[in-house]
Amino acid sequence: MTELSDLQAIISDAVDKISYPQYPEQLYEPLSYILSIGGKRMRPALLLMACELFGGDINKAIPPALAIEVFHNFTLMHDDIMDNAPLRRGKTTVHERWNKNVAILSGDVMLIEGYKLMMQVENHLLRQVLDIFNTTAVGVCEGQQIDMEFETRSVVEIEEYINMIRLKTAVVLGGALKIGALIGGATQVDADLLSDFGVQLGIAFQLQDDILDVYGDPEKFGKQVGGDIISNKKTYLLIKALELAKGKLAVELNSLLSASNLANNEKVAGVTNVYNELDIKQHAKTAMQTYADKAFEALKKINLPEKHKQYLQDFADGLLVREN
Amino acid sequence: MTELSDLQAIISDAVDKISYPQYPEQLYEPLSYILSIGGKRMRPALLLMACELFGGDINKAIPPALAIEVFHNFTLMHDDIMDNAPLRRGKTTVHERWNKNVAILSGDVMLIEGYKLMMQVENHLLRQVLDIFNTTAVGVCEGQQIDMEFETRSVVEIEEYINMIRLKTAVVLGGALKIGALIGGATQVDADLLSDFGVQLGIAFQLQDDILDVYGDPEKFGKQVGGDIISNKKTYLLIKALELAKGKLAVELNSLLSASNLANNEKVAGVTNVYNELDIKQHAKTAMQTYADKAFEALKKINLPEKHKQYLQDFADGLLVREN
Repeated sequence: MTELSDLQAIISDAVDKISYPQYPEQLYEPLSYILSIGGKRMRPALLLMACELFGGDINKAIPPALAIEVFHNFTLMHDDIMDNAPLRRGKTTVHERWNKNVAILSGDVMLIEGYKLMMQVENHLLRQVLDIFNTTAVGVCEGQQIDMEFETRSVVEIEEYINMIRLKTAVVLGGALKIGALIGGATQVDADLLSDFGVQLGIAFQLQDDILDVYGDPEKFGKQVGGDIISNKKTYLLIKALELAKGKLAVELNSLLSASNLANNEKVAGVTNVYNELDIKQHAKTAMQTYADKAFEALKKINLPEKHKQYLQDFADGLLVREN
Repeated sequence: MTELSDLQAIISDAVDKISYPQYPEQLYEPLSYILSIGGKRMRPALLLMACELFGGDINKAIPPALAIEVFHNFTLMHDDIMDNAPLRRGKTTVHERWNKNVAILSGDVMLIEGYKLMMQVENHLLRQVLDIFNTTAVGVCEGQQIDMEFETRSVVEIEEYINMIRLKTAVVLGGALKIGALIGGATQVDADLLSDFGVQLGIAFQLQDDILDVYGDPEKFGKQVGGDIISNKKTYLLIKALELAKGKLAVELNSLLSASNLANNEKVAGVTNVYNELDIKQHAKTAMQTYADKAFEALKKINLPEKHKQYLQDFADGLLVREN
């Protein structure tokens, strides 16, 4: 089995070799730009990994893996417009560097370029792979829409939140793994199990991200610690805290959320204190473990040599203990 | 052969039957909304027509025809954001009725829904049909980008303009006809010729639209007569006038274009007067006829019964003499 870091390097090299037309420059330059500012290439690497696990040739899986990466970056380009984000991975976002119209249209063509790459599979897989891609892509749009709606809602249920992160974040991991598995020659049953592994792992991963946003080591966590608290983002932690807080704690939490003249560090400290009183970190860790367990259950059922399953298990363990 | 109006009615019925998920409502409602506000369903009707011309079963061509219509409406939804358009076919645009974020995201999912419909072709045609769809879709994005760039450029060449309208408007007609022809059982050669017929006809049609915007009967022309003049839109007429105007006329034209305190009707009258002095209408008509002739040349070469070709010829004649 190829090391994860080597798979990521294969993807990075292949991304660097993608070339788009010179004209119209403002349409295509943003594609090269957003692809060049990096990211961990985790989704496409997972696709290659799945292919290899089932004995397939990684080279055949590179174009669909790139399709997943191009698609992912298309969603970032459009999400950044919607979120009014000035920076992405420390670099100016496309709509800031050019303008919103450029970011809309370049994103559109980027989605189409994703389809073009995804079509570079053998004929017997074409329909099935594109069906998975369509389902994945629709899911991500639904997840983004639901996420935006949460911003203006006063109450969100845990179940709704899990469904949102499943759609927005997890289905892409499942889709990437499933496509890779099929290219590698997996049976339908095994491909579905691997997809389920990816989705459950993706949910666990997002829950960990919610935890790290509050409790992560500022040195290791890539983003501003407490960023979710500052923006009142309805994460698992906040939703659970709003559900559990009663009496004085409820009053305190709500006043922290609605305070307009509070310094960011005071707000973060205050909300974190409420979380601590309610043992929210433990609640979130338990939820995270529940989804990790579901992932491992799916993994167990896959018809693969134990050694290969161990590889996936190690990958998941590595993903879920990260403190960065 | 089925009458064009009947083909349009078949499409309208099929559009009415498309149903999208209930949730998330704000993601899917705009799709039903924009599809419901009409339009002539000309592009999908052309796809059905092409299928029938080659002896195919129209019913098989309905999903790909809907794909073309859904795709077209996706481009309208995003173009309206970029153009800041308040109205589309007399109704509030999606970004005005909801907001820009909704229009971006609903447009994205609409493009994916277009792919899902386009995939409803037989396996042996799947790759080829999707390749045509990709090429068409990329072309439309390129055309829109070039069109936007023209707004901020002082000089645009006629050749560049023709290339822009080919991409933005004409390739969809070509693509729709080609896909329909292939579903109907046309040879590759005939499908390509029919595609070329559609592209050339599309260019001629857009040039006619440019003419009608200035010289059309206000009673019949659906849009505000002179709208292009008011907005300084670089149409064939304006580009040609800027090319031909010398001396006093050039000064007059440029002062009309840069005047900020001129009433709309005075500006329209003034620019139209310059056009008349330069015989611009005739130049545009000649150009239009050149592309119509190219369309008819392609048509002649198609291996179809004369009766069927006459049908296409009549269709094109009908399209190009419209004064509405």
